[in-house]
Amino acid sequence: MARVSQEHLDARRRQILDGAARCFARNGFHATSMQDVLKEVDLSAGAVYRYFSGKEELIQATVTEVLDSVQAMYERAALESPPPAPDVLIARTLTHMTREQSPMLDNGEWAFPRLMIQVWSETLRNEELSALLRERFAKVRAAWAKVVVRYQETGMMRDDSDPDAVARTLMAVVQGFGVQYALFGSIPPETLQAGMRGLLSMREATGGAGNQSVKSG
Amino acid sequence: MARVSQEHLDARRRQILDGAARCFARNGFHATSMQDVLKEVDLSAGAVYRYFSGKEELIQATVTEVLDSVQAMYERAALESPPPAPDVLIARTLTHMTREQSPMLDNGEWAFPRLMIQVWSETLRNEELSALLRERFAKVRAAWAKVVVRYQETGMMRDDSDPDAVARTLMAVVQGFGVQYALFGSIPPETLQAGMRGLLSMREATGGAGNQSVKSG
Repeated sequence: MARVSQEHLDARRRQILDGAARCFARNGFHATSMQDVLKEVDLSAGAVYRYFSGKEELIQATVTEVLDSVQAMYERAALESPPPAPDVLIARTLTHMTREQSPMLDNGEWAFPRLMIQVWSETLRNEELSALLRERFAKVRAAWAKVVVRYQETGMMRDDSDPDAVARTLMAVVQGFGVQYALFGSIPPETLQAGMRGLLSMREATGGAGNQSVKSG
Repeated sequence: MARVSQEHLDARRRQILDGAARCFARNGFHATSMQDVLKEVDLSAGAVYRYFSGKEELIQATVTEVLDSVQAMYERAALESPPPAPDVLIARTLTHMTREQSPMLDNGEWAFPRLMIQVWSETLRNEELSALLRERFAKVRAAWAKVVVRYQETGMMRDDSDPDAVARTLMAVVQGFGVQYALFGSIPPETLQAGMRGLLSMREATGGAGNQSVKSG
């Protein structure tokens, strides 16, 4: 066999993962066969099976890659001084994902948000995928909690807030926007940022020591 | 045919919808047959088809019921004075949904969050369901935007924020928590509330006229 460069191997792996992502995004994991993937990437079975043993490995590799990459992004954010505010970080997440998970469907739609929903749906009945998703999500959540602790350390957030609960809320925003993107169409990063910024501009209206209710009327 | 009371008809309809919700939550829309639903609700085909013509009508009735009910909840919230803060309203949404969509799976798990993901997944390839979901979601979003406008009118939020973008962010939080509930297990309303409360306690760290950065160190 001819020797091939690492770049070639990486590019081929990328090509297969991107093709599989398009197939899964289009029809879901269940209704996609390895034949569909081979046809999509226009490679022989031998060329594809050299990299992945089958559908399970393809979806697991995609989940691992996506969640590792956002985890690393939040780890880096926790090192910034001051840490990027939630509205900035949420918009950055979308920009990051469009770059890292770039496959488009035939109609020009970004495949990733649909893929996300298809992965969740498959997770509901696939123990192995469910375990993988739990493990990786826990890491993303922990990375995001580090950013929240930095908000507290720098006086940007009250330090009686539970960093894990805040991290889950920020994750929920990203997941929820993914859902809206898949179901209702493209959302610019600016909209995510504006929405979160509006929330951050709020004064607490309920009682307690931190009450800063402002009446403008 | 014997005359039956409206209560009886309503209870029977509820029984069928709840059984269908359990089936869809468990196996997804595609893999569920009307036979599965009949078996689940322990009724004859005649009894069920009197209410619903088939799977499509069952899922459409569920989506309509759920989204109408949350829309009404936010419409009521917009009439409260002062309007309930986002953290309160998000916790209230979860409490509301556990009451309105109560079916449990055999393992004691709340069926609704799983059902939500299954509906989204089906929506990706079902034009009719997709159109229904878009239409109803637009109404929920508009209802939530009314609450946001009330935040601005009462001085709880800066009035240069885009109400629609904020409404989408709040919807995203609810949707994202639904995802986390389905994938990682039960979340108490207090966690949702604490997470959002932490965010609301933030001071803006980026530049601009509204900058209220507080250094505690």
